[in-house]
This record gives sequence, structure tokens and C-alpha cells, in this order.
Amino acid sequence: MELYDVVIIGAGPAGMTAGIYAQRAGLKAVILEGHFPGGKLANTAEVGNWPGIPEIGGAELATKMYEHCSALEIELKFDAATGLEDHGNYKTVHTNSGEINTKTVIIASGTRERKLNIPGEDTYASRGISYCAVCDGALFRGEKTIVIGGGNSAYEEADYMTRFASDVTLVLRRDVPRADQINVDAVARNPKVNVVYNYTPTAFLGNDDHLTGVEFAHSKTGEKRIIEGRVVFPMVGLLANTDFVGELPILNDEKFIITGTDMSTSIPGIYAAGDVRDTVLRQIVTAASDGSIAAQSIVKYLQTLES
Amino acid sequence: MELYDVVIIGAGPAGMTAGIYAQRAGLKAVILEGHFPGGKLANTAEVGNWPGIPEIGGAELATKMYEHCSALEIELKFDAATGLEDHGNYKTVHTNSGEINTKTVIIASGTRERKLNIPGEDTYASRGISYCAVCDGALFRGEKTIVIGGGNSAYEEADYMTRFASDVTLVLRRDVPRADQINVDAVARNPKVNVVYNYTPTAFLGNDDHLTGVEFAHSKTGEKRIIEGRVVFPMVGLLANTDFVGELPILNDEKFIITGTDMSTSIPGIYAAGDVRDTVLRQIVTAASDGSIAAQSIVKYLQTLES
Repeated sequence: MELYDVVIIGAGPAGMTAGIYAQRAGLKAVILEGHFPGGKLANTAEVGNWPGIPEIGGAELATKMYEHCSALEIELKFDAATGLEDHGNYKTVHTNSGEINTKTVIIASGTRERKLNIPGEDTYASRGISYCAVCDGALFRGEKTIVIGGGNSAYEEADYMTRFASDVTLVLRRDVPRADQINVDAVARNPKVNVVYNYTPTAFLGNDDHLTGVEFAHSKTGEKRIIEGRVVFPMVGLLANTDFVGELPILNDEKFIITGTDMSTSIPGIYAAGDVRDTVLRQIVTAASDGSIAAQSIVKYLQTLES
Repeated sequence: MELYDVVIIGAGPAGMTAGIYAQRAGLKAVILEGHFPGGKLANTAEVGNWPGIPEIGGAELATKMYEHCSALEIELKFDAATGLEDHGNYKTVHTNSGEINTKTVIIASGTRERKLNIPGEDTYASRGISYCAVCDGALFRGEKTIVIGGGNSAYEEADYMTRFASDVTLVLRRDVPRADQINVDAVARNPKVNVVYNYTPTAFLGNDDHLTGVEFAHSKTGEKRIIEGRVVFPMVGLLANTDFVGELPILNDEKFIITGTDMSTSIPGIYAAGDVRDTVLRQIVTAASDGSIAAQSIVKYLQTLES
């Protein structure tokens, strides 16, 4: 049976960095990617917090990482993982085009935004719809901002955006927040945030160039209301791309992967890196760091397998 | 009293990335650096594992990060921390030129290699003396390699270097290893590593261009012996740059800083990032990641201070 040392699922910053470290360590490695290299980074308008580059397009940075992988001749298969089986000393990754056997796996499959599924969502993607105030906030200095959601990430994003925005309107679909009290309190005493309850978004509005606002309907009466804004953050939830993990006991209740500081999961030989992890901060540089740690942990793990 | 939001001690990859994140979050921040921006990175010959750049000089990458900080107009003081006091809601950082009061501190002061203090150590620095096989190993493909030390890092480095080296000689000063059995076993069954006991290094040898070997003396008989090698890894210990921390209870027994996954220490408002942490892997990208996490954790901490 042909065995890889490591199969890396996902070619975002975490997966590509894991590939760079694995390849440099001499491991037989392959990266699987179902879409295009870069993951969510490739869809990010501008990146201002990748150390060493004051401003770069997300797609350009993703391309640089991809070219780094190419220079090291890392094998990259354009194929999506559809299943994962643990057989102890080896694992089987099922893909759209077959299966691959490997001693170890790094799951770096990232997250996707929970969509609102309303008109304008595709039209204004990257043209006023953003999912990351830490990433994009500084691009909207002085602009009216809308945040949609009632959880911690919505409250944190609304509070955070007052560093940049002229004002922030936080719109909840329900009449009570789900966020922690500390976040609710922070927003309550922030004069730049206006909280609106009981409105459900119904359409993103804009001109030929960019977003200009969001249409809402009252959750009880159905009354329509338009809130103006140059940028909107729909913070209604991240979904971990872990469907292929199936019933393996490595997920938390929200389907994110639980790891130790060495990126190991509860199953020996299965590691995770990047946004798909249950973690405190999801950034390009944190994902890349996770990838390096996962690969080096696997170097050590393979030494124990051989003993 | 003038208070910074955050004083960042050290302008290596961890400190500079923390600065980038802090400045973008609108915090009043300053980075203190006693030597030059870049820290250990600035002394690294070639970097091949910084994602997005297949090969770059360490000094050049450090300069790019410094220019990123400059573009954001981050305050950088060329001044070294000499002491740190905790006063609860504020901290005092003592420096060579005075003192600075601040709500929070990020300690990103890195490590220094424990020196052997033998002839040739300065002459062949970066010309055959290396302290990081993960960083530099691939540069010495097919070359004879010497590793000095008897601890985990020496055993791991010796085993790791056999991916690249023609052969590796691991030289211990004592007659028994201090390393964990798993690492001793890995070396024992690796046919490319030759272990030599009871020899103490006495001089680095070389030609006008680079290192050619190391002279040793038998630890008991004093007999001289020369071992040839194109590269030597003196793995006799890293020292954390934490002298200025004094008696604050945030250090482990080896004077590295203990943190949680959010980079907090046991003292509220004091955080750490990068090599100075008690951590599993010390790389440029892991240090940068730590810096981003520490800065974002401080954004949240300052919100609780204000409440």
C-alpha cells in the first residue's frame, strides 16, 4: 500500500505553510484543495496585517504562498476531501476522485461564512460586505457601518469597528442578545454604536460600485426599513468545513476541531491547523503558525511510529 | 500620569507583529528595542520557511517588517528594558533611559544562545555555526555536520539534520545523555548519526571562508581530537532574555515565560509572545502569530479595564 507521510487537507495559509514545513523536512506530502489555493485569503480584498507587507491584495498574497509551494515542488491535488477514516498507524482520506492512504493528516480546511441567502449577497461580496473587522476595518475609516448578529462576534465586531467608523448600527434579529454580558456592556457604553432589535435583513443594497445599505424587515410586524452603510459585517456565524470528518471524535459542539498546543487532536496522527480549529483568533499569520507547528509535530510523531 | 496602552519589549518578529496589530487597533503603543529591529531574525543567514517568500535573507525580512511598522507610524524607542513592576491597573517598565508607565506589557524579548566561549565562535558565526536545523539545515545538504550537546534539542537537531547531512557527529561533554529516551532511541537507530561521549569543545576551526571543523578535548584525559564538519550546531541551551522580569511570578524554572493560548501570563495585563515563551516551536511565523494574539488579547483586556 502506498502511504504518504502526510496529507494536508486545504491549501489556505495553514495548509500551505504546513506543506512548506513538511516538504523542507523531507516528508512525502500532498496538499488537497477543492477550490483554489489561498482559501479565504484569496477572497480578501486588502491585507494590512501580514508582517512585512504594509498593504497587499489577498489574492496576491495567496499567490505568493502558492508560488513558494511550487518552488519547493510540493504536490498539490485539486481534489476535495469527502471522508476520513482512522486505521491506527495509517489513515484513509476519501476524495472526489478516489482515496489516499497516509500515516498522518493535517486538517486545514478552514471555515465558511454562514450566508444570509438574501439578494445582493454575491453582488456586493468584497464591495462592502466584509466578515472581518480586524482585517478590513481600517479600510472603512469614517464610514457608516452595519453589523448584523446578536452573538459575541457581532458585539465584538461592532465595538471594534468604532475605532474606524463614523458610527455603527448593530442589528439583531431577535430582541435579546446571545452575546456575553461583558460584550453587551461594552457596546452599551460605546456612544458610537446604535443597537436595533427585531430586524431581519432582507436585501443588500448598492450602486454599480459598492454597497450603500441594507434593507431589513421587522421580525414581528414585517415593516420594511433601510439602514444606510458603506460596509456591512454579517456576523451570523462561521461554519467549520468539517463535514468530511464524519463521526471521528475530534470536534467540539460547533464542529470545530479541538487541538492541543502542538496541533494534535485526540486521534494520534490526525492534526489540525488554521481557522478550522477551536481557537482564540483567526488570522492569516495565526493560521500559518498553526501549519508550521502541525508539520513539525508530525515530524516528531513519525519518529515515534518508526520506533 | 502618562499611560501607554501597551509597551512591547523587543522588536523581533513577535514584537513587530504585536505592534502592527496594536497600532491598527488604535492603541497607544511603543516598541522598545535595545539592539536593532529584527532580533534573532536579523542575524539569520537565509530564511526559507517564511510563507510567501521561497528564499530571503534574515536581515532583509527583518527590514521589511520594520518598514511595515514605519508605514504605520508605530513608535519605536531604541532603549532596553531593565526592570518591570506591576501596580495592578498599570505597569512600570524601567529602561536604560528612564521609565515608562503603561496599562499593559507584551514581553517579546526573545532568547540568546548559550555561548561556548571558545576561540572561533565570533569568526565563524553565520559561516558554519548555526543554532537552528529547521531554519538552516537545507542549506547544508550533503555536508558533514557536528552537533554539540546532550539534551533534547541536541538529540533532535542531530536526528533532524540527517535529512540533509552526509553524516552527523553528535558530541556530548558527559558520558550520559540528558535527553528523553525517545530522542536517544531515535538517534541510536539512525545509521547516519555517530555519537561521541566525553569530549568538550575547545575551538572552532576553519579557513578564510567558512568553518571546517571543531577541536575537542577529552573530558577526562584532556586528549585533543579534531572532528571535521562544514556546519556545527552548538545546542548547549537557550537563555530567555527575562533578566528584567525580576521576581514577577510569570517564569518557569528555566526563566521562560508561561502563557495561556491567549498569550496572557499569571499577572493581568502582562502578556508574552515569541521565543521568550515556554512553547513547542520557535519559528519566525510562530513568533509573529504570538504577537498578533497578544495584541488582540490586550484589546479585549483593555475593554474590561474600562468597564
